[in-house]
Amino acid sequence: MSSSHAPAPLSLVADIGGTNTRVALADGALILDDTIARFRNEEHAELEDILHAYLKSRSNPKCKAASVAIAGPVRDGRGTLTNRNWSIGPEMLQRATGAETVAILNDLQAQGHALGRIDDKNLRCVIPGPEALPDAARIVIGVGTGFNIAPVHLVGGQRLVPAAEAGHVSLPVRNEAELGLAGFIEEDHGFATVEDVLSGRGLERVYAWQSRLSGAAQKKDAARIMAALEDASDAVATDAVATFIRFFGRVAGDLALDHLPLGGVFLSGGVSRAMTPYFDRFGFSDAFFNKGRFSDLMRSFSVHVIEDDFAALTGTAANLAALIETQSAAP
Amino acid sequence: MSSSHAPAPLSLVADIGGTNTRVALADGALILDDTIARFRNEEHAELEDILHAYLKSRSNPKCKAASVAIAGPVRDGRGTLTNRNWSIGPEMLQRATGAETVAILNDLQAQGHALGRIDDKNLRCVIPGPEALPDAARIVIGVGTGFNIAPVHLVGGQRLVPAAEAGHVSLPVRNEAELGLAGFIEEDHGFATVEDVLSGRGLERVYAWQSRLSGAAQKKDAARIMAALEDASDAVATDAVATFIRFFGRVAGDLALDHLPLGGVFLSGGVSRAMTPYFDRFGFSDAFFNKGRFSDLMRSFSVHVIEDDFAALTGTAANLAALIETQSAAP
Repeated sequence: MSSSHAPAPLSLVADIGGTNTRVALADGALILDDTIARFRNEEHAELEDILHAYLKSRSNPKCKAASVAIAGPVRDGRGTLTNRNWSIGPEMLQRATGAETVAILNDLQAQGHALGRIDDKNLRCVIPGPEALPDAARIVIGVGTGFNIAPVHLVGGQRLVPAAEAGHVSLPVRNEAELGLAGFIEEDHGFATVEDVLSGRGLERVYAWQSRLSGAAQKKDAARIMAALEDASDAVATDAVATFIRFFGRVAGDLALDHLPLGGVFLSGGVSRAMTPYFDRFGFSDAFFNKGRFSDLMRSFSVHVIEDDFAALTGTAANLAALIETQSAAP
Repeated sequence: MSSSHAPAPLSLVADIGGTNTRVALADGALILDDTIARFRNEEHAELEDILHAYLKSRSNPKCKAASVAIAGPVRDGRGTLTNRNWSIGPEMLQRATGAETVAILNDLQAQGHALGRIDDKNLRCVIPGPEALPDAARIVIGVGTGFNIAPVHLVGGQRLVPAAEAGHVSLPVRNEAELGLAGFIEEDHGFATVEDVLSGRGLERVYAWQSRLSGAAQKKDAARIMAALEDASDAVATDAVATFIRFFGRVAGDLALDHLPLGGVFLSGGVSRAMTPYFDRFGFSDAFFNKGRFSDLMRSFSVHVIEDDFAALTGTAANLAALIETQSAAP
């Protein structure tokens, strides 16, 4: 327990999304809620500016460690925020924060590190499952600007959250209509991937395709598609969301077979959350279970939606705390 | 080093395939080659009979530990050999061998534990890749009687090889002809999976479908299909193998994106080995790389074929040795 009279050095953590960056201070694995601040990426040339502004606003506290989660690929400890062309390395993090221990991870991996530390009220159950062993494998499936996964394993008390590029696999097509959608995607992309459908832009693509089928060939952005579904003003929007949710259930089921998450499947990201209210109406569960003679096996997996905006911050802090512990345990 | 005058207690390991069981003694992680024996499953009512016969043939050596790898699912430490209805539990292993420490694992997971311990001469490179970091993730893809995978991760010196049911995911269809194959499979199976194509019986199914397309509607077993390909006596066999290898490359590529095995993809199983000589002719690499705008990423992965008949025994012994080490390190 840290005392308010002699505070232990804190860690700085940040969650860098495509649009916003959230920054906070953490005491070990615990995010200090009243320190969370949000910055718009487009108002800053570099992440370093955001970190400077944040630390200055808090009277430049001493940080013993710092870690950021990025909505983009991380290789050899260096991350790239694809849509802003920000390259984020450990030297910059050390320079900006003065921290000795720094870590950069992918935002989906951060969500994976948050599992088990998210308040139950922020987990919405969409498919119940059997009680899981505490060390059972889990998986996060993130659908937002892009699509990716984070499998989560516990090994000898350590948590392993491997990287993946699961949005780029083949779109699983099962009938003539879906093959038509894949062909429509291939006109622009050469190859139809899961992310080409299961993402914000993917929903817009499905809408454009179903609009063409209806003879109109219109476009709508994702927010307007969801609004048109809600007020039932556009049958094409309804069809697009129905198609999206059918693919979502099928892909989540395939990923469950591929990773056997007997500890549960966890859906994250803004698009997952926007779709959740329509899962029952458009048969997410049916699509998840629909594996022919393997449908019984699918009953082994529960599915929850992560509704905690700060899960990536929580996971970033937890991973950093575990890293510090490993370092201090090393000879 | 064990001395021949005062031998250290040995371990018993077994690899239980659909048809044969191989049994051997191991000194730690090292299989003693001259102790390997093979038994036909159909000549024995239970695995226990095989273990008794083996130990008796070797004058009932004392076994400190015993482990078996099974071509079937393992749940909560108990395995099932699906095609013979053998249920294999730890009590039986202890009773049959007198060993204190016992472990039961899936045969693909055993192959995963063998990676890094297979002689280079038994690894055939089919796609070269960049040098990998020693702790990079790897994956085994097994194609034989069935289809499955074993991802391999190293965490703090421990090896994690999670279970999977990856043969049961959706068959990735990309064009009208392939959709026709999926429909043909659905006539019998209700749902077209990867294993419905990528397995010994899968090859026979592809042959039957292509034979129907050619107007003949013939059937051939897998061995005769491969023979007819080799002597160019049957164009349908050639087409069937071409289709098989195209799916094999595509599925292996999808699995690489899903698991990011920067340490390499390793193909195992009798069908993988039978197909390898035809990879170039039928474009395995092209299908592996053909991920549109993500094709560059695919250059991160090397692909090898495991040609070691005893890899599962090696992996079983290595896993058992690691388990004994963990137990003796525990307080």
